[in-house]
Amino acid sequence: MDKTDFNLACPIPKNDYDKILLAHGGGGILSNQLIQKIFFSQFDNELLNVQHDSAMFNINGVRLAFTTDSYVVQPIFFPGGNIGDLAINGTVNDLAVSGAKPLYISVGFIIEEGFEIEELWRIVLSMKQAAEKAGVKIVTGDTKVVNKGKGDKIFINTSGIGIIETGIDISPINVKPGDVIILNGKIAEHGIAILSAREGLEFETTIKSDTAALNDLIDRILKTSKKINVMRDPTRGGLASALNEIANKGNVGIAIEEDKILISEEVKGACEILGLDPLYIANEGKILVFVPKDDAGKVLDAMKNHPLGKESSIIGSVTAENKSLVTMKTMIGSSRIVDMISGEQLPRIC
Amino acid sequence: MDKTDFNLACPIPKNDYDKILLAHGGGGILSNQLIQKIFFSQFDNELLNVQHDSAMFNINGVRLAFTTDSYVVQPIFFPGGNIGDLAINGTVNDLAVSGAKPLYISVGFIIEEGFEIEELWRIVLSMKQAAEKAGVKIVTGDTKVVNKGKGDKIFINTSGIGIIETGIDISPINVKPGDVIILNGKIAEHGIAILSAREGLEFETTIKSDTAALNDLIDRILKTSKKINVMRDPTRGGLASALNEIANKGNVGIAIEEDKILISEEVKGACEILGLDPLYIANEGKILVFVPKDDAGKVLDAMKNHPLGKESSIIGSVTAENKSLVTMKTMIGSSRIVDMISGEQLPRIC
Repeated sequence: MDKTDFNLACPIPKNDYDKILLAHGGGGILSNQLIQKIFFSQFDNELLNVQHDSAMFNINGVRLAFTTDSYVVQPIFFPGGNIGDLAINGTVNDLAVSGAKPLYISVGFIIEEGFEIEELWRIVLSMKQAAEKAGVKIVTGDTKVVNKGKGDKIFINTSGIGIIETGIDISPINVKPGDVIILNGKIAEHGIAILSAREGLEFETTIKSDTAALNDLIDRILKTSKKINVMRDPTRGGLASALNEIANKGNVGIAIEEDKILISEEVKGACEILGLDPLYIANEGKILVFVPKDDAGKVLDAMKNHPLGKESSIIGSVTAENKSLVTMKTMIGSSRIVDMISGEQLPRIC
Repeated sequence: MDKTDFNLACPIPKNDYDKILLAHGGGGILSNQLIQKIFFSQFDNELLNVQHDSAMFNINGVRLAFTTDSYVVQPIFFPGGNIGDLAINGTVNDLAVSGAKPLYISVGFIIEEGFEIEELWRIVLSMKQAAEKAGVKIVTGDTKVVNKGKGDKIFINTSGIGIIETGIDISPINVKPGDVIILNGKIAEHGIAILSAREGLEFETTIKSDTAALNDLIDRILKTSKKINVMRDPTRGGLASALNEIANKGNVGIAIEEDKILISEEVKGACEILGLDPLYIANEGKILVFVPKDDAGKVLDAMKNHPLGKESSIIGSVTAENKSLVTMKTMIGSSRIVDMISGEQLPRIC
């Protein structure tokens, strides 16, 4: 093997972690360390370094967004969806929260030998339906098969391209003190639905994933206000991780109120039984909108009038103090810091 | 599970194949059947249906190409390269053979728990170098970790976007009787290098993968002639599968001459020992160029003057007769049909 290309020493010390842990894919501190030290340090360029949900660039005067996500959710079928519609909705949402109108999707399948073609067929039908609903086209694809025992049924990568209209500038670095934070409904449903299906828990029948394409809701938001600073879908790592990322990148404080964050009784009960904090549980149909106070009222109204935003509420605001921190006023009136997740609460939820 | 969405019966009959076989990912007849019956039948749209290496579309007057590929090569390090530079070069080439100038690449990692971070680091360094060499930027990415035993070290998806300049129209359906077919060098090196590394065969040290980014060579070809009709990189399924695909899509005959196809002595020997036909073995740095006869000479010269085209030669031509068939005049003067591969000769070579 040619070793001459590899003069640079690996920046993660051997005595720290020398092997990949599940937590390196958990969306928390270890994920972040891996991405920063290994990927960003080498792939370094001005487009990648924005670290948004999508890369954004200009080709011959046309502004585009480009994003990728691999889906390894287990089980592949769960209440409310499956790996197929999840993969379409997730990539549609990553484009939409970047302010882009999603247009074209690529699909890469990695299938384990022995996988039932009937199951593949059901996944493909869901992808087709999800794409139609979101108004995107699946335009290119790839299929690989790996030996039995070298994969896990099916993994799906979706990448996507969208167009960013003139005047739209959505980015975590645009967040400003005074911005109001709006969330479009109940949290933690996707992660709990997956966990319930995986473990065969009793509440399985009542908790459904919230997986949905948010681009139509986002289109309405962007038509209502020209002042939207940031949008973010709180997926892997949940609400807490998404807010921490924005507080960090924007160098602002974020203050939220526990009693404004909606959680269904079923999810609350499941979290209590399982010892999980719903703030860290993944969502797949939720969006955080950061907008200056003077436009917050009309944005909230517009969101409430959309089927995916009926339960929207203002959950907090951005502050100049407590930079890079997320603080939460609890139900009992005290205040606590909401950290970024460090380990891996729920592996393979997306 | 919600079954109401799945009224359509799976189009591959149960008594045919009810489970995914390795051959469904082999680039041959079974792959084709899966793609046509399951994916194309549902994702059906005018862009996908072109079935080119990249999807090609126009956004606000800018013509773009978009492609995706997942890499599951085993072993991940092999003579001449590794899964990292292979993934960059492969996507660069899929864009370039569509006539696009590759610009931006996304990277999705699916890593198995327990994978050595040092190995990941070496792969990432190779990707960085390959991207720099090809002049593309890695602008967005995603990392997922799956449990030990549910993956195989590392799988990489790369998707890419390129721009297609005005006047360029490369597509398998453009192939025309009379077109001359030029190939840029020796075949079957990638597949044999992988197989040798995998099996620990003796000739391992002398046969290297030909993995390379072809966009600079292709740029030179496109600057030399405005009449290029088709280009194709004969990867999975080898030269035979690439030629069959073009003969089928273009509804033409293809006639090649065995003695014009270069194969190194080492590869020839390995193929004999292993009982493999080099026409079906994957290449990762080869390109087939279809150009009308009057421009063939200058294109051949331009290719020969490029480091990746020194051994270019005319291997055959396109005919109006024998539609959808590839025929080969053998060394001994007889003629035989070169079929599409049916099963799986070498799984997981890319």
